[in-house]
Amino acid sequence: MAKENLTIIKIGGNIVDDAEALQAFLASFAGLEGKKILVHGGGKIASRLADQLGVPVQMLDGRRITDQAMLDVVTMVYAGLSNKKIVAGLQARGASAIGLSGADGNAIRCVKRPVKDVDYGYVGDIMADSINTAFLDNLLQNGQIPVFSAITHDGGGQLLNTNADTIASALAVAMAAAYRVSLVYCFEKRGVLLDVADDHSVIPEIRKPDFARLKEEGIIADGMIPKLHNAFEAISAGVDAVYIGHAGELGELQNGQFGTRMAQ
Amino acid sequence: MAKENLTIIKIGGNIVDDAEALQAFLASFAGLEGKKILVHGGGKIASRLADQLGVPVQMLDGRRITDQAMLDVVTMVYAGLSNKKIVAGLQARGASAIGLSGADGNAIRCVKRPVKDVDYGYVGDIMADSINTAFLDNLLQNGQIPVFSAITHDGGGQLLNTNADTIASALAVAMAAAYRVSLVYCFEKRGVLLDVADDHSVIPEIRKPDFARLKEEGIIADGMIPKLHNAFEAISAGVDAVYIGHAGELGELQNGQFGTRMAQ
Repeated sequence: MAKENLTIIKIGGNIVDDAEALQAFLASFAGLEGKKILVHGGGKIASRLADQLGVPVQMLDGRRITDQAMLDVVTMVYAGLSNKKIVAGLQARGASAIGLSGADGNAIRCVKRPVKDVDYGYVGDIMADSINTAFLDNLLQNGQIPVFSAITHDGGGQLLNTNADTIASALAVAMAAAYRVSLVYCFEKRGVLLDVADDHSVIPEIRKPDFARLKEEGIIADGMIPKLHNAFEAISAGVDAVYIGHAGELGELQNGQFGTRMAQ
Repeated sequence: MAKENLTIIKIGGNIVDDAEALQAFLASFAGLEGKKILVHGGGKIASRLADQLGVPVQMLDGRRITDQAMLDVVTMVYAGLSNKKIVAGLQARGASAIGLSGADGNAIRCVKRPVKDVDYGYVGDIMADSINTAFLDNLLQNGQIPVFSAITHDGGGQLLNTNADTIASALAVAMAAAYRVSLVYCFEKRGVLLDVADDHSVIPEIRKPDFARLKEEGIIADGMIPKLHNAFEAISAGVDAVYIGHAGELGELQNGQFGTRMAQ
């Protein structure tokens, strides 16, 4: 029997924090056919709250260090304010969303990042067996749309801050055993561009053998290399296709007109 | 066929905000046999956060007025920080909790309180058909323990602040159609006391006909009158028994030694 389709979509803080962009996104997300999961990152609201509370934002090599005070801030904003606003917005559009952290239903159990040269604090790393697929499968089979914030737990009572891109990818790989999974990363560009200066030069599809060639030719460079590397890793691990494109164009996903599609 | 037992427990901010009391409560809650639901109120953490953010706490006749800024604060604290700490704490004790607001799974849809003499702001009133029993039943049948914060929604995208005692009672009445429901209110006393000055004078059981007599004799007075009135309303609406007692003694519930039991 053919596997059922499952679409997993990740949005970042740029959409979550922008009321107008978020409502437009939720309208197109609610309209997507079939089973789906949403993962949302955090953004400026958490930084602003930390600022107001006098909690210093500590960054090291572009990565946030999460001490106890910052963990409380991101738990309040990601798992509370942002998650519940998204869920209520989806309910208003007839989509039965259920907001989750990794602690809920033991959906995502992480390991606190080991301290080597740097102590990142309460940051969770996803492991091979982190995802509770039976729990998620049951929600999906009952018509629910899981909406994940980027807060997880360690199974021992400790909440952890976890990268939302990594959560989306780990969910996609784990659910690929039972579903034909499309993983969609919404970001600020319309897709992978042939010419970074030309927003209309979206490459519609990149197959695995194309990736090495595009890198060699310098068409894929800088920040796009790790993004595409991670996409092809997910594909190698069983995900059917990975898409990168602009949140505002999500409505085109099921017409095959959304951003850049990566596949085997 | 006899109905299955379901225990619905409400705890207040005095437990949620006290790390030690909360951990002790979670240990006894996790140990309770059978299907169960937890409802938690908020407390000082929300007031302290509001204070730090310069959001004025507006009270009228002992009731909080919830403007937009205060709604954001309670959503962050109740549905975010407190709810996820409780869920992670239960997971650590092997109890598969799932944290919910009323928006999640459209579990509790309220109506924004109509403005008459007073505008209470974003406060939700529970209606006869507010509870999505099919959704909750599915979670319970799949071994999940729903943990509710006191945030609901109106179905049109608006989150609402709702009284936790009322949520617990409405859940109990709605679930009584399919379960034999015990509704447990944890508060700061050991139960209904025959002599308010004597903590050992707990009345073990109050039947409906006793209630009128105890009121007449002045044994039940002041703040206990509405509590017991609401308890007997829930019983008239199908709830099997309502208990009032101290959170620290919850372990005695299934021995019949917990607080005061009210029944038909």
